[in-house]
Amino acid sequence: MSDVTEALSRLVRDVPDYPEPGIVYKDITPLLADHGALTAVVHALAAAGRDDDGRTAVDLVLGMESRGFILGAPVALELGVGFVPVRKEGKLPRETHTESYSLEYGEATLEIHTDAIAPGSRVLLVDDVLATGGTMAATRRLVESCGGVAHGAAVLLELSFLPGREAIGDLPLLALGQV
Amino acid sequence: MSDVTEALSRLVRDVPDYPEPGIVYKDITPLLADHGALTAVVHALAAAGRDDDGRTAVDLVLGMESRGFILGAPVALELGVGFVPVRKEGKLPRETHTESYSLEYGEATLEIHTDAIAPGSRVLLVDDVLATGGTMAATRRLVESCGGVAHGAAVLLELSFLPGREAIGDLPLLALGQV
Repeated sequence: MSDVTEALSRLVRDVPDYPEPGIVYKDITPLLADHGALTAVVHALAAAGRDDDGRTAVDLVLGMESRGFILGAPVALELGVGFVPVRKEGKLPRETHTESYSLEYGEATLEIHTDAIAPGSRVLLVDDVLATGGTMAATRRLVESCGGVAHGAAVLLELSFLPGREAIGDLPLLALGQV
Repeated sequence: MSDVTEALSRLVRDVPDYPEPGIVYKDITPLLADHGALTAVVHALAAAGRDDDGRTAVDLVLGMESRGFILGAPVALELGVGFVPVRKEGKLPRETHTESYSLEYGEATLEIHTDAIAPGSRVLLVDDVLATGGTMAATRRLVESCGGVAHGAAVLLELSFLPGREAIGDLPLLALGQV
């Protein structure tokens, strides 16, 4: 078992019936609090932004509010590129592109600054969990609204009983673990 | 002018009348998108978690939702310790300690998992901006509720026209810039 597989298995905690009855929430906070595990998963996620020779193949890393911020910023630093936040509605102060979508539970709107991505830039999308794929698909549309190119997506966990992979279409996905 | 001072001056953008008339919002997204600037500020913030000999003097780095996540996680990795998120109300899935406080604009409640900090652990608190100090003071109380010790606070910018430093009392503060 790799360090990453071991870390995910030991340090991601299931919380039943959160935030709603019937949902099993994946609590990644024990993993974040463990320096060795956090280092290992950041390194593993960053591989999604490299080419076959290990060279950085993206111009930016984008993280989705809020847990995508915790993982995305270190991945950007490891790849040697900048970080762009995609935020919930009304949190970005300047002109934005906006996308609304359905969540595993509820509905959400995401925004990006219109000038956050230079046209033609390649972007890696980082989040903690791929569930229905709604967040990731909306984020890809935001990248494309800016004229950027979504190079791929990287997540800690894919909930494979949900149609996340289908929702993101042909966007390459690196999931460090599956449940 | 140091790299950090130059980065703050060039890459933090003033947005007048956001989120309310009369407030000048400090938009750090251009700085985050610049790899060199992000690297420099993370390195500078991490100094608040080191002793005089440059050794890590904290057991954990804590970041406040949401922009504190973007800076705090890389600071934790640089210091060789884990990361703990302090979140807005209702976002943490297990038992929490809770603190409410007044913001520069509005009111807020923050939470931490009750088991997030082992008793006696030393914690560095990281956020982007120190404004009224309400967020930082509430976060310190959360650390103390867990039995932890707030070692210090580190922020990109201190709004020195607001009483943030007074609000945090004797908590040592590193502010990379002041406005």
